[in-house]
Amino acid sequence: MEIITSRENKAVKKYIKLRDKKSERDKSDKFVIEGVKVVCEAVDGNVQIETILITEQCLSKNKDALDNRLIDFNNVHIVTDDIACKMSDTKTPQGIFAVCKKLDKVLTVDKIKCGGFYVCLCGIQDPGNLGTIVRTADGLGADGIILTDSCCDIYSPKAIRSTMGSFLRIDMMSISDEIDFISLLENTVTIASVVDDRALAPYELGKIENGILFIGNEGNGLDKAVSDFCRHKTMIPMKGNCESFNAAVAAGILMWEFLK
Amino acid sequence: MEIITSRENKAVKKYIKLRDKKSERDKSDKFVIEGVKVVCEAVDGNVQIETILITEQCLSKNKDALDNRLIDFNNVHIVTDDIACKMSDTKTPQGIFAVCKKLDKVLTVDKIKCGGFYVCLCGIQDPGNLGTIVRTADGLGADGIILTDSCCDIYSPKAIRSTMGSFLRIDMMSISDEIDFISLLENTVTIASVVDDRALAPYELGKIENGILFIGNEGNGLDKAVSDFCRHKTMIPMKGNCESFNAAVAAGILMWEFLK
Repeated sequence: MEIITSRENKAVKKYIKLRDKKSERDKSDKFVIEGVKVVCEAVDGNVQIETILITEQCLSKNKDALDNRLIDFNNVHIVTDDIACKMSDTKTPQGIFAVCKKLDKVLTVDKIKCGGFYVCLCGIQDPGNLGTIVRTADGLGADGIILTDSCCDIYSPKAIRSTMGSFLRIDMMSISDEIDFISLLENTVTIASVVDDRALAPYELGKIENGILFIGNEGNGLDKAVSDFCRHKTMIPMKGNCESFNAAVAAGILMWEFLK
Repeated sequence: MEIITSRENKAVKKYIKLRDKKSERDKSDKFVIEGVKVVCEAVDGNVQIETILITEQCLSKNKDALDNRLIDFNNVHIVTDDIACKMSDTKTPQGIFAVCKKLDKVLTVDKIKCGGFYVCLCGIQDPGNLGTIVRTADGLGADGIILTDSCCDIYSPKAIRSTMGSFLRIDMMSISDEIDFISLLENTVTIASVVDDRALAPYELGKIENGILFIGNEGNGLDKAVSDFCRHKTMIPMKGNCESFNAAVAAGILMWEFLK
């Protein structure tokens, strides 16, 4: 098999474009993943993988994990360590990269109306926070994630990495307007996470097993119009001079209260 | 007032050394902070500030906040925007930097033995996680933080930034060995956060109002010797194929359960 040694190779260039550009991911409906564990999970999870790029060292080092998984797969390219460093989004590249088709684990309003507990993320800007919240939602057993268009891209390398594989498991949907979305939900319980001392602590809301928790942007929180449109408002009580919690921690504590 | 224009200026060099080197922070018992809000909080919180370096633009833009606070302070240097960029640890520097003496908000074993709820962080490696946990502990009302020597430095710029000012408010102590430390605590309740399906969920432990929660390293968790030495073991139940939670999120959920 020929070894790719040039940054100008078509497959390498495409990978890097998909890694760096949301517009490219949106246009082609593809995204990239990096690392042995996530590539194996993607293969096992029936993600449609278009191309794999791998160093010889990675291939021999992970023979047991990769041989079976890649056997029926004919679009594998070998790249040099130097090219792997250029492709990698991490400081210590493992040497395996894949171009994948975006998932079809799509959540629908109809499914939400049938029950379950969901989290709607509104304008989360930090890909680490976004991925961490998706990871926590999956681990705590949420039934799906709704992402507003104003969130950063869940398919960016940093967000995908922060999910630790949870993006493969949890259903997701995108919405452009929270109010329009809530209007479609009929009797579904909606809970806004706010910073407002008049809001109730989550344990004061009574048992809510089905509903949607709305989490706002890191700096500004939820739009007032959105929180006013929700049935309940909740806040984690804060002690002393602390002004706020980290968005991923606050989301984690609230999801825990509703899902435990 | 003379304007500092050179990276070779003594005050600038000292700042950058303290910013980048734990050894320098340890040796001199000093650390650095950056940004208007945290510098104001440090002045208000009676932190001993040795030097302030500031751009002319920052000084005029924040006249109201800074004039009163800096009036009795004679060690203020003006730096150019170019030097501010070299000093800054962020992408968009605000243009204010301070060298501070480390805090004396020191926690003691005697205080712990008198009651309260504490968090002991064992080998946390990521400064963002470390700072976020300190921020959450402060916001939820923990009475202090214990840090093992194997943690990354809480006085590093990224950790300090992630605390969002909470490092100014919460008592802290360092320990070198968890077992030695627990041995000194007499009847204090100790709770190990573990990944072990046989461990109880936090709400199954019964009400614990006074005690110490031990949180382990991001990748490896707590040393088995440490968790075995604790009175209780707890774990956040995980659904599906999720293998772990983010360390700061897990710490947040557990602290919430004990402190709410």
